[in-house]
Amino acid sequence: MATPGANLASRLSGGGVGEEIYDLAARIFPICRSITGDGVRATLRELGGRAPIAVREVPSGTQVFDWTIPPEWVIREAWIKDPSGRKVVDFADCNLHVLNYSAPVRARLPLAQLREHVFTLPDQPDLIPYRTSYYAERWGFCMSHRQLEALPEGEYEVCVDSEFRPGSLTYGEVVKQGATADEVLLSAHICHPSLANDNCSGLALLATLANRLQAVETRYTYRLIFAPGSIGAIAWLALNRDRAARIRHGLVLSCVGDAGAPNYKRSRQGEAVIDRAMAHVLRHQAPGSRVLDFSPYGYDERQYCSPGFDLPVGLFQRSLFGTFPEYHTSADNLSFIAPEHLASSYDLIVAALDILEGDRLLKRTRPECEPQLGKYGLYGSVGGAPASPDRHMALLWTLNLADGRHTLLDMAERSGLPFASICAAADAALGAGLLVDAP
Amino acid sequence: MATPGANLASRLSGGGVGEEIYDLAARIFPICRSITGDGVRATLRELGGRAPIAVREVPSGTQVFDWTIPPEWVIREAWIKDPSGRKVVDFADCNLHVLNYSAPVRARLPLAQLREHVFTLPDQPDLIPYRTSYYAERWGFCMSHRQLEALPEGEYEVCVDSEFRPGSLTYGEVVKQGATADEVLLSAHICHPSLANDNCSGLALLATLANRLQAVETRYTYRLIFAPGSIGAIAWLALNRDRAARIRHGLVLSCVGDAGAPNYKRSRQGEAVIDRAMAHVLRHQAPGSRVLDFSPYGYDERQYCSPGFDLPVGLFQRSLFGTFPEYHTSADNLSFIAPEHLASSYDLIVAALDILEGDRLLKRTRPECEPQLGKYGLYGSVGGAPASPDRHMALLWTLNLADGRHTLLDMAERSGLPFASICAAADAALGAGLLVDAP
Amino acid sequence: MATPGANLASRLSGGGVGEEIYDLAARIFPICRSITGDGVRATLRELGGRAPIAVREVPSGTQVFDWTIPPEWVIREAWIKDPSGRKVVDFADCNLHVLNYSAPVRARLPLAQLREHVFTLPDQPDLIPYRTSYYAERWGFCMSHRQLEALPEGEYEVCVDSEFRPGSLTYGEVVKQGATADEVLLSAHICHPSLANDNCSGLALLATLANRLQAVETRYTYRLIFAPGSIGAIAWLALNRDRAARIRHGLVLSCVGDAGAPNYKRSRQGEAVIDRAMAHVLRHQAPGSRVLDFSPYGYDERQYCSPGFDLPVGLFQRSLFGTFPEYHTSADNLSFIAPEHLASSYDLIVAALDILEGDRLLKRTRPECEPQLGKYGLYGSVGGAPASPDRHMALLWTLNLADGRHTLLDMAERSGLPFASICAAADAALGAGLLVDAP
Repeated sequence: MATPGANLASRLSGGGVGEEIYDLAARIFPICRSITGDGVRATLRELGGRAPIAVREVPSGTQVFDWTIPPEWVIREAWIKDPSGRKVVDFADCNLHVLNYSAPVRARLPLAQLREHVFTLPDQPDLIPYRTSYYAERWGFCMSHRQLEALPEGEYEVCVDSEFRPGSLTYGEVVKQGATADEVLLSAHICHPSLANDNCSGLALLATLANRLQAVETRYTYRLIFAPGSIGAIAWLALNRDRAARIRHGLVLSCVGDAGAPNYKRSRQGEAVIDRAMAHVLRHQAPGSRVLDFSPYGYDERQYCSPGFDLPVGLFQRSLFGTFPEYHTSADNLSFIAPEHLASSYDLIVAALDILEGDRLLKRTRPECEPQLGKYGLYGSVGGAPASPDRHMALLWTLNLADGRHTLLDMAERSGLPFASICAAADAALGAGLLVDAP
Repeated sequence: MATPGANLASRLSGGGVGEEIYDLAARIFPICRSITGDGVRATLRELGGRAPIAVREVPSGTQVFDWTIPPEWVIREAWIKDPSGRKVVDFADCNLHVLNYSAPVRARLPLAQLREHVFTLPDQPDLIPYRTSYYAERWGFCMSHRQLEALPEGEYEVCVDSEFRPGSLTYGEVVKQGATADEVLLSAHICHPSLANDNCSGLALLATLANRLQAVETRYTYRLIFAPGSIGAIAWLALNRDRAARIRHGLVLSCVGDAGAPNYKRSRQGEAVIDRAMAHVLRHQAPGSRVLDFSPYGYDERQYCSPGFDLPVGLFQRSLFGTFPEYHTSADNLSFIAPEHLASSYDLIVAALDILEGDRLLKRTRPECEPQLGKYGLYGSVGGAPASPDRHMALLWTLNLADGRHTLLDMAERSGLPFASICAAADAALGAGLLVDAP
Repeated sequence: MATPGANLASRLSGGGVGEEIYDLAARIFPICRSITGDGVRATLRELGGRAPIAVREVPSGTQVFDWTIPPEWVIREAWIKDPSGRKVVDFADCNLHVLNYSAPVRARLPLAQLREHVFTLPDQPDLIPYRTSYYAERWGFCMSHRQLEALPEGEYEVCVDSEFRPGSLTYGEVVKQGATADEVLLSAHICHPSLANDNCSGLALLATLANRLQAVETRYTYRLIFAPGSIGAIAWLALNRDRAARIRHGLVLSCVGDAGAPNYKRSRQGEAVIDRAMAHVLRHQAPGSRVLDFSPYGYDERQYCSPGFDLPVGLFQRSLFGTFPEYHTSADNLSFIAPEHLASSYDLIVAALDILEGDRLLKRTRPECEPQLGKYGLYGSVGGAPASPDRHMALLWTLNLADGRHTLLDMAERSGLPFASICAAADAALGAGLLVDAP
């Protein structure tokens, strides 16, 4: 039988995927998300229009390893009025203005005192920073440094109409059954508010992929997780230890929409199949891309790659978090991402999944010497010509390395040829009865 | 006892070996060879004047793995007469003019139709290409592109007086018994017609080596095979599975006479002793040489390194096949090869054989600390002098690494010293009773 | 319990160590040492003022592996008088003037005959060379080439008032007991006469380290050996096979006081912990330093790394022996070494010992996901900020790799962070109960 998942790429790709992802990212961009609360639910509803996302709720107070699910954060309004009574900062204009998870406050206070609760970026004076205070209770605002500097002395009125209440942490999950119970994990963080690249891009790409995966048969079962950063992944791992044990390959997605060249950070294991697959795809399809060694700083690969799990989960990004000036500021908006970059990321990820699906162990039916390829229609009949096309080389490599110990990815790596060429050669040789699956 | 094969190089080399090889290559150059037929027999007869070659015949129709020995090709004459009746192409002038294994034909036909059966090299318009059609029956001619372009319109008469008849595939074999039944395989293809580098050079070198090997005692048994490319090696492997299992090291030789720097392509195993020995020799003795990774495209290493055998057999060449403009053209003639290059190739191959013969596992009789070298006459007696000659370093390395786990080749590689220096040091230390063979 | 030896560096270092070493080196510089004799004893007496050195005597004639302890060399005076009766060379001026281990002589002879017994350095005509003749009995002098060339013809009177007598080979040993019987070996050769860098520097550094080690608790037992080169190390190994088996790490010290950048030569094992520790220290603390592969030429690592022992013992030097013009000449005097370079060498060696002492295997108490660092006071409470200081990264790496299979040195190597940062992070995490020792 043919491998169910082979040629996933051709069946999952197609015109307009970049625009499709961009439009979805644009729809969820305005929502104020945090690690808990209605923002996450509204986002999952929007994404759910695209794919059958199951919404999970983990009650506040639940112990998940070393952590406790925090109370749910409700944010209704937040503003600062200047001495003249004019609103100079309003959460309704931009949800970055409120310190994420800010405690409630209603007060009048002089400018000097207000400044202690205001975060700005002096080096990027026109941008509003994104700041959080999940686990230490405090109140605060974020604004542009230029605006802060222009505020007149006097008494200000501040209002953060927020609330911490027993509720739950919300995450979304799509499971697409495959031919086997072995799982591929794809995960994107859903806790950041109006930041387009970080991570409306990743959420929209994942939902779009979930949608298209429904239509195809796959070898692996795919688990797509839309969860708040850190605490969400920790909650999932704590509540799904059996499922975690079935994960064979995984990718965390974030910042997948900007113009930078792609980056892949290896899993803690370093040479896992997903690491090799992504490295292969980037080498062949993404000039200027880089493959980085694992580091325990980043996104939820930190949890998946913790020593108690050590799962083969890497991180795919375009520009690396923390390295581009728009990172965690109001400049990470919808003009910072573009359909073409989203489509490029999508294609690279699907190409890596195609390797996971198509990789297999084959062996020659008769391993001695080369077969007489002409008998099977696999060879041009005039010998002695100097040039040998890649297709022929792929066939020779496949027949030479099909000893039941080299996977197709091994063959692609050793030959330097694209995985797809090796797959095509293997298909031809399987069709001719020259190869069979190795047990 | 001394290793029988040690210092093979000094006993096999000697003045005039380049001329000796060149003269033999020149004698076999005019013969029209193919994968079967009298050309091979005539060539083996000529080579047999130099070395005791046993001629083997494998009947047409014999099944050898996936292949069948084809009918024997007889070629008597082949020519094209132009509309005026003048012979414009004649096999008698140059045996490249006929498509090798051409079917017989006798016909009159217009130029346009003739052109469909003519192979030329538009980019090298003065050269005649070499083309074959072993396994698809067709007739054809090869000529220079300039000549083809100059042919006037009109009716041409063509004749290929050839025949396919039940016969056999012919190959030659020299076996030189050594002290052990372990074998070194040396193999050169005999199927190309008048191409000097590819492979009159390899055949003549091999026959010359066979001749000189008769006179020396060796540790290994040497098997030298002069067989048609692909089908010849396949036939040998199919009919000699027991012998193949005794092959410990092997080299395929082709294109050993041109002015290019030497190249060695590793076996499929990649780090076999022959791979390391050739890499060592090229590094120390052949500036500008290169060591290439295995690839399943090339000469008969394709068969020896097929997964069912996976023998440690590499490929030695000077210029790489397919990369030099003379390759598979009438420019690969006797002026393209030279005695000095043939001698260089011979010396490098013999140096590698010297490593195979001399490599061994030694251990110190008393492994603690250094011996007092002066007691054994192995040390200059005035200490404190800054300079230490290579000879002394070779002795120190040999004594330090002689722990029963490092072979002499291991020592040469780790020390960066020539294998011959390590061997000389080992001989001195064996003579002094400081080393013994490790079991 | 805290590791007894952790932070050895801070407890062993301190102001003025360079001057302290230099002064001691200056005190032993004038003594005429050889592989046996009173010079060694006088040197050990001087060094013994600093540290509790046990003096060992191995009788002449004792068999130590392949060697025999030679008769003891007594040198009283040595001079050359020119035809006018003037002393032109006098051992009393510079002990390099006599061939070390010179046989006695008292003779009158013409200049031509005298020259056969005189060693000079024609390329460095102002310097007196250092030469020895331990194992071949001869007499001789060393002088500057310029002086030799200026000697007038005529009859010379020579006197070497030396004597070979049954006595012993002398070496010194300091043993500082640690918490375990596992040993760290530190060794410096004591056989060279007035050469400051080679090896008054190493002897003085070792004695100073011995002194300071007395005051601290260590995990390892430290064995510091001050022995004649080659024969001294061989004697120690022959007479202490049980102790040699307890050596876990070792360093040979020589030429540690000149201005050159430090060099470390790996042990024969190549990737022993001491090799990795020294490479780590040099990479982080010594710009321009180099790590060299093992070679069996050098100092007493030759004996420690002989195949019968194969101990993990490397060589630390500043300028490599044999490569600087002052090497083994009268220019290797007290102006060639300086307190600052001695202090630098000391600090680097202590930093490496600190790694040996502090390296350990830890594991997470709860290995799943990251701990909530804020709960333990190990995290700044405002998230989302882009910059992450090294201290935080060290903590994340330590928590991620603490799986009972990575030592702290493994973590430092993989993270690229200094060992001290990893140690500090591990201490913090141990203190918070997040880590425990792995069995």
